[in-house]
Amino acid sequence: MNSPQTIQVNTGVPYAISIGSGLLDQAGERLKPVLPRATRLFVVTDSNVGARYADRLLNSLTTAGFLVHCHTVPAGESTKCPARLTELWEAMMAFGLTRTDGVVALGGGVVGDLAGFAAATILRGVDFIQIPTTLLAQVDSSVGGKVAIDLDHGKNLAGTFWHPRAVLMDPAVLDTLPLPVFMEGMAEVVKYGCIFDRDFFDFLVKRPSRRELMADIEHILYTCCELKRRVVEQDERDTGVRMLLNFGHTLGHAYELAGHYTEWSHGAAVAAGMCAAAQVGMGLGLTPPEAVEAVMEAVAALGLPTAIPCSLEEYAAAIGLDKKGVGTDISLIVLEDIGHAMAYKMPKDKLLAQLEALCGK
Amino acid sequence: MNSPQTIQVNTGVPYAISIGSGLLDQAGERLKPVLPRATRLFVVTDSNVGARYADRLLNSLTTAGFLVHCHTVPAGESTKCPARLTELWEAMMAFGLTRTDGVVALGGGVVGDLAGFAAATILRGVDFIQIPTTLLAQVDSSVGGKVAIDLDHGKNLAGTFWHPRAVLMDPAVLDTLPLPVFMEGMAEVVKYGCIFDRDFFDFLVKRPSRRELMADIEHILYTCCELKRRVVEQDERDTGVRMLLNFGHTLGHAYELAGHYTEWSHGAAVAAGMCAAAQVGMGLGLTPPEAVEAVMEAVAALGLPTAIPCSLEEYAAAIGLDKKGVGTDISLIVLEDIGHAMAYKMPKDKLLAQLEALCGK
Repeated sequence: MNSPQTIQVNTGVPYAISIGSGLLDQAGERLKPVLPRATRLFVVTDSNVGARYADRLLNSLTTAGFLVHCHTVPAGESTKCPARLTELWEAMMAFGLTRTDGVVALGGGVVGDLAGFAAATILRGVDFIQIPTTLLAQVDSSVGGKVAIDLDHGKNLAGTFWHPRAVLMDPAVLDTLPLPVFMEGMAEVVKYGCIFDRDFFDFLVKRPSRRELMADIEHILYTCCELKRRVVEQDERDTGVRMLLNFGHTLGHAYELAGHYTEWSHGAAVAAGMCAAAQVGMGLGLTPPEAVEAVMEAVAALGLPTAIPCSLEEYAAAIGLDKKGVGTDISLIVLEDIGHAMAYKMPKDKLLAQLEALCGK
Repeated sequence: MNSPQTIQVNTGVPYAISIGSGLLDQAGERLKPVLPRATRLFVVTDSNVGARYADRLLNSLTTAGFLVHCHTVPAGESTKCPARLTELWEAMMAFGLTRTDGVVALGGGVVGDLAGFAAATILRGVDFIQIPTTLLAQVDSSVGGKVAIDLDHGKNLAGTFWHPRAVLMDPAVLDTLPLPVFMEGMAEVVKYGCIFDRDFFDFLVKRPSRRELMADIEHILYTCCELKRRVVEQDERDTGVRMLLNFGHTLGHAYELAGHYTEWSHGAAVAAGMCAAAQVGMGLGLTPPEAVEAVMEAVAALGLPTAIPCSLEEYAAAIGLDKKGVGTDISLIVLEDIGHAMAYKMPKDKLLAQLEALCGK
């Protein structure tokens, strides 16, 4: 086996993120020492990813001596629901899973979030392995331990924190991602540069094509995961510095809502949300105009939207200004410069006034 | 306010168990300092308990300034299911619950387990308050942080650990419990004496009637919770000494299964399970005959069954001897004497041979 790059994450039980081409076929031998007591592994994947990659994973796990069951859920966000969670719980018990066995997620954020929540709660928690197969999942949802499902009332409303025992990232699987899905992940990659690391931001904008980005993909994955690791270790339960990762997400959420979660992908909404947050920051006198321009150019170069139509009413709904009894302040993540973000607390109506200027454009 | 007895539990965020008559009407003022950031409290109760006690609780909470919503679920074990969990999640969001608000369980073990699991997972976890109203819940399920729902495959299979921020026990509410439900709780009370405290065991057997027990109920509640606290603090995740609390439960589980969870209450099954475990311990040369006799007399004095019919096949199913790939050893909790328990690991077929003798009786 060639040696993958690894990042050691020290939250709860420490675990390693391994990044390397070909890891998918080495999963069995790599997981054996991580899960020494496991006999059975319950693999969750979706209809798209499973068709392409499940056989290779199952083959590797079986060769290493694990008893494996593969459970395939439909691809798409609607799979992250209570009914699928219950389906997974029952299937795990039907498979004979015990407290010393494990659950493996092979897929993007939907599969990771659903399988992770099921792993966190079946038998009050069993070991969990992430094998993320989208760029978005690799740089974001597979680090940090957040797992959840959606409710009728909104996304990720029921969940918990459950760190994986290992994350295996095989960048080779990104080759089969559709271009828009790849670029959606790039929105989150650019976000890390914006909020934490100007050099990384500059590195990215010099590589505007997928081909150029893929040539350095291991470095990109490593940098994002390392940045996220530092934040997550500081703030495991998401009550402080971790909120900086929400840059672009508050207003991105408004665009997702306005498009009923179907018109705009999460990545596209976050991309436009970063541009809007940069402009709001400028309006507040916090973000220099050059930084705003840099964010918008980087987003545009990836073929992602720098603005998404959204009415003032839709903004108001997204930031909770229409609900009674909800606190009237909001923390928006804004840039002091490329590479430096801060949480800026202000009255919600002050934010709305800033957004009004954007609506008029 | 008169001062209740309190026990400080140091697991995760420390919390207090308060025991005192009249606490139900003081809930609002007592919870105010525990939940300083909470605006809203989502109260879960069941159709039996709610009809009797919800008004007093809601009145106290509202008077203290909380915005309160009361959600009533049907009484009975079948309420601890995925569909009710989803119902609670959605109702909490409809109520406008935020991460700084709280969930209050007013009821027995079913309500506590269901509401606790919902509290642990809504918005990735909000503060949780237990107000247990059965003897069983007061001495057992409200201490220790175990919350769960049942699946088709068995009881308590999906859940997590989520400690309450406070437990309020008002022994006065026990007056309205039906006698069999009160005595069911006494099975767990006697269990604490059997495994940890001979003096407490002797104290209990001198008080065989409900009237006599209720005269000393605060002492009984305090002793049980204090004994459980010590165990839970040592072994928060239930991987070691906490398993001693399973005395009577492994074989009790066989009786519950044999009776399809309807014929025997949990307490009756545990009572007979303790008697059977004592006899198995004697058969293994670990438990002195006098201790077996003492356990059986104590159980009989409470009007609980000292034996429940169960076939060898039913025992085998309950201890997992019929499942492939499940470890072939089992740890049974046996008594070395009244007040002293140990986990005794043996091959499952050795246990079954011991149980065969019981079947023949």
